Order: sequence, then C-alpha cells, then structure tokens
Amino acid sequence: MRKLIVATLALAATLATASALAEETYNLRLAETWGPNSPILGDTTKHMAEMAETMSGGRLKIRIDSSNKHKAPFGIFDLVRNGQYDMGHTASYYYKGSIPNAMYFTTTPFGMIAPEQYAWFYHGGGMELAQKVYQPFGLLSFPGGNTGNQMGGWFREEITSLDDLKGIKMRTPGFAGEVMSELGVAVTNIPPGELYSALERGTIDALEWVGPALDLQMGFHQIAKYYYSGWQEPGAETQFLINEKTWNKLPEDLQEILRVAMRTAAYDMYIQSTHESGVAWSRMQQDYPDVTHKIFPPEVISALRDVTERLLKEASDADPLAKEIITSQHEYLKQVRQWTNISDKAYLNSVVNE
Amino acid sequence: MRKLIVATLALAATLATASALAEETYNLRLAETWGPNSPILGDTTKHMAEMAETMSGGRLKIRIDSSNKHKAPFGIFDLVRNGQYDMGHTASYYYKGSIPNAMYFTTTPFGMIAPEQYAWFYHGGGMELAQKVYQPFGLLSFPGGNTGNQMGGWFREEITSLDDLKGIKMRTPGFAGEVMSELGVAVTNIPPGELYSALERGTIDALEWVGPALDLQMGFHQIAKYYYSGWQEPGAETQFLINEKTWNKLPEDLQEILRVAMRTAAYDMYIQSTHESGVAWSRMQQDYPDVTHKIFPPEVISALRDVTERLLKEASDADPLAKEIITSQHEYLKQVRQWTNISDKAYLNSVVNE
Repeated sequence: MRKLIVATLALAATLATASALAEETYNLRLAETWGPNSPILGDTTKHMAEMAETMSGGRLKIRIDSSNKHKAPFGIFDLVRNGQYDMGHTASYYYKGSIPNAMYFTTTPFGMIAPEQYAWFYHGGGMELAQKVYQPFGLLSFPGGNTGNQMGGWFREEITSLDDLKGIKMRTPGFAGEVMSELGVAVTNIPPGELYSALERGTIDALEWVGPALDLQMGFHQIAKYYYSGWQEPGAETQFLINEKTWNKLPEDLQEILRVAMRTAAYDMYIQSTHESGVAWSRMQQDYPDVTHKIFPPEVISALRDVTERLLKEASDADPLAKEIITSQHEYLKQVRQWTNISDKAYLNSVVNE
Repeated sequence: MRKLIVATLALAATLATASALAEETYNLRLAETWGPNSPILGDTTKHMAEMAETMSGGRLKIRIDSSNKHKAPFGIFDLVRNGQYDMGHTASYYYKGSIPNAMYFTTTPFGMIAPEQYAWFYHGGGMELAQKVYQPFGLLSFPGGNTGNQMGGWFREEITSLDDLKGIKMRTPGFAGEVMSELGVAVTNIPPGELYSALERGTIDALEWVGPALDLQMGFHQIAKYYYSGWQEPGAETQFLINEKTWNKLPEDLQEILRVAMRTAAYDMYIQSTHESGVAWSRMQQDYPDVTHKIFPPEVISALRDVTERLLKEASDADPLAKEIITSQHEYLKQVRQWTNISDKAYLNSVVNE
C-alpha cells in the first residue's frame, strides 16, 4: 500500500510539473509609438498579440501600451533596451539621432519598394545587418509592417521646375527634409496636431505625411490640390523590437509563435495599407474632384537623387557599418529592380487604360 | 489513508487527462502537386510544416507527399475532398476542368498583381468568395504562395505585330492558351520534360513557363532570345486546401497555428520568388548576353485584352457565381490600381536609370 501511495504521489508530482511547465504563462509588455486605436499601425500590434495568444493557447500574453500610457512615442528603443518594456513597435528612423545606422531598416530614399525590401531582409542579408546594429544593445529587431510607397506630399501650388521649390515652406522631417533643404526648401517642423491649420493659413505651402490611408483623416486634401508621388520612402517598414533577455527566457515553441506572429502581422500591415490606400484615394477624389495626382518633373527627381546619393556617400565614408548596409542595399536593389522592371513595372505600363 | 489515496489518484487522473489532451499529437498528411524537392513550391510546404510543428511544440505534424508518391499531381482537389489526404498544396486553375470557378483564385489575365490580390483576398471579399466555391465540397481554401508576375514567355523570333503571332506554334496552357489561339497562335500541349528539345528542334516557336526563378533550370534562355513580359498571370497564387473534417477536429490553438503558418508561408513564397527571380534573371543575362527583354506591342496587348474580356463576359453570363467573382475582382482592381498607379508605378517610372 505504501508503495502504491508513493508511486501515485510521484506520478502526480511528475505530471503536475510537466503540466505546470507546459501551462506557464508569459506576460510580455509592448510599448508602441502610436496613440491608442491608431489605424493600421495600432491594428498591427493588436493583431500580432491576438495571433500569439490564440496560437499559444493563452500561454503568451502581450499587453500593449500606447503613447498616452508610456509618454515616450519616440523613446521606444530606450524603453525596450532598458527593460522597462519587453517589446516595442516603432520605426527605426525615429531614433536615428542616437543610432544613425538604424534608419536604413525603415526605408532609404530612392531605395527598394516593399516586396524588394522584404526580399532583402529575408534573402539578401538585411536581417543579419540589422542584428549587427541591434546586438550591442541587447535587442532583436524584426520587420513590423510596411506602409507601402509613401507619397511625396501635398502642395498648394504645382511644382513645374526646381525653381518652384526654392523658398517654399514645407514640413518634411528626417532625411527627406535634409535633402529638400539642400534644394532651397525652407523645411519646418510642426507638430502633427497643428499641420492642418498651418497648411490652411499658409504658414506652410506643402507637407509630407504618409499616403492616402493615413492622410485622409488629416484632411490635407481639403486644402491642397496637388498630391505628389514620392521618392523619399519607397517602402517604409515599421519595426518590432524585443529585449534579448525576454526572448531567451521563452521556450522554443513560444519563440517561434512570437516570430511568426510578428512576421505575419508585418506582411498583413503591408496588405492592409494597400487596401486602405485604395479606398482612401478613391474617397478623396470623389469628395474633392479637384485633387490632382502629380509627379515631380525629371529635373526635380534628378536633383533630389543627386543630393540623396551625396548624403549616403558621406554616411558611408563616416562609418564602416553604414557603408556595409548602404552597399548591401545598393547592390541588392540593382539586381532585384531588374526583375521588378520586367515584371510588375512592364505589366503596369502595358495596361495603360487603368 | 484511503481518502488520501483516492484524492491522490483522482488528482493524478485529472492531471493525466489534461496533460494527454494538451499533448495529443495530430498527424496530418499533405499531398502536393509538385515533385520532390521542387524549388520555391516545395520549399513552401516544407516551410509551412516546420513552422506548424515548432509552434505547436510537436503536437501538429504534417507529412508531405510529393507527386512521385501519390501519382496525382493534378488531382490534389479530389485527394483532399475524398479524405485520402487532410491537406493539399496546388494551384486552383489546375482543376478548372471540373470546377471552372476555382480558376479565378489563382490569377486572372489582365488582373491584379500580388499585393493587390492579397488585399482582395483579405479585405476585398476574396476569401469569402473562395469559401462559396469550396464549401459545397467540404473544403477550406487558403492562399498558398505567389509566384509574382509571370512572364509572357520565350520566343525564338521577335513579335512586332499581331501578324507575327499568326501561325506560330506555342506551348501556353489554360485560359492564356484559349486567348492566344483566338489570335491565330497554334497552341500545343507538350509535357514539361520535352519542352526544351521541342523548342530547340523548332517543334514549337515559343513557350510560356513561369518566370526567371523557375525558367532558369529549364534552360529555355539558351535557345530563345526574346523574353516577353506577361499579361496572363499577373499574380499567380498557389493554394492550400484542407478537408473540413480535419480542420474541425483540431483544437482552437492548432487551427490558429495552422492558419498562420499557411498565411506566412504564402507571403514568404512571394518574397522568395521575388528574390530568386532577381538572381536568376541576372544570371541569364550574364551567361547569355543576347537574351533580350521585350514587351508585346500595344496592338497585341490590346487584342489579348479584348479576347480576355470577351471570355470573362461569357463565363459571367453562364454562371451567377462566376459573375460574382469576376465582378468583385473587376471592381476591386479598379479601385486598388489607382493607388498602385500613384505609388509604385509612378515611383518605378520616375527612377528611369534603374
């Protein structure tokens, strides 16, 4: 009898341990740059967390804090690096002030479009280069969702030459702003909440935001007539950051669940952006029929490109890792673009009536 | 003492049951159209199965049988429908003979490119329409990976007019073949293994296969000089099929693991195709510098398009569900293409020197 009790207790203990291990719940906290209920961007983090929780049978729970909670929309990198949060969702060019090389993992002016860039990340060495940048900080970085090709911006007056750019006041941050200012644009920084009235009152003549899906709610199409195609962010990829310590404490199955949930959420954001951009652009044109799509004249594109290449060369010369990243992107683009040209580009150009 | 034993035994039994349930292994069998170790296509099923197994901690195992095993490369639909296999990986236009409406879920001539089509599947009603087609057969259908925009084919002589098409012998199966034959092309069907020698000996003057990534190993570029951009399969999506009975017996977490593994594998195939196409096209041009990219002249495109539209109208008129699918795709394309035009198309056209 004693033997039976001991054996039974031992069995129960073993099963309890196995079960406890299998059932252990991991509660992660994620800080995102975006405000609460931010369309597309906020959808992406929620979607990722839901997939992870369902796939793990509730063992992996991710609580999302929006910027109203953590108050540091552009400080996600630090929040995750310091371990205040396990994860973050942001865009790497938001903190190019502290880590200049992070910028290239969002997008590069005159660089790759979304599918080309995913190919670079997953087959062309992009992920490995990202790890070179993030490993020293104890972080892992994963693509976090693409906005698609961003628009060049809303202009109150048409741009027919380089001269037309000189002296106009434009809100365009970051690298694009540096390039524009070299062409004589008076680049200004205005908080998002004041952009509409600044454009309306003529404090600025032009501004660049994202694309139809996110521009629609900002209402710029109600004021400015000319909507220019872009050059500055051909495939802006947001980013999931994870603290390595958090990653390492997850069992293998939950690591894979998290990795795949992020990967799918990222792709899904690109597709959602494609959809919502189509819907929003159609709506803008319907509600404001005088809104016109424009492309910058070749001399403007060519000048923007020359400055971009000069700035990239300066960055390359100043830092070996920057050089490695820029060269890798440049070489990869050269190859993959030849394919894009004979496939989607040739096709889109041949169906002229659409 | 008796009480303790009973309680202990009860606890052990409860834990054993919970543990057994949590640990139950589901062994699914998948039949794929492709032969063993088929590049890109076969990579996709393996990749999907590996993600599912790792995410489930080994509870969901998918055994893949290639066509050498099940001997029915174009009979995947029946194998899964009859329950001989739990899952399949194929392309829905392979069985358009028995289910004509399945065809539109692969691609439609002059239709959407890959990201547009994913947007239609996931946000434009495409998945719901697919279920209308597959539900009567007790099947679930999911996107299975995109080849990207397929090429129009390899031609030994240049096509400079509609007249040049008349009388040439070409291998191009399915809907594209029907369209081509209306333009006077002598459409022939030749088994894949004999295509190279048929082209070499002049039994055929032209053929259409997939795109650089899968054409390279076939060697057609060693014979034919002119590589034409396509119109017939702007975003060919393969397909995962699952028997509903298999799906329903899976617990919720494994259903989600399987759904997300398929979704990621599909996107990943599109990106892998993008990468490998870039690599292969570069290689072809390097090894055979006289290989030239061509686009069909506008009068050819226009004639191909007229016939395509007539055939689609005939299919619409003949079947209400066909009409619903074709109309949905047509309406969706009209909207999303406007976005593609002002984003990627405008951008790709503005960077002329690439």
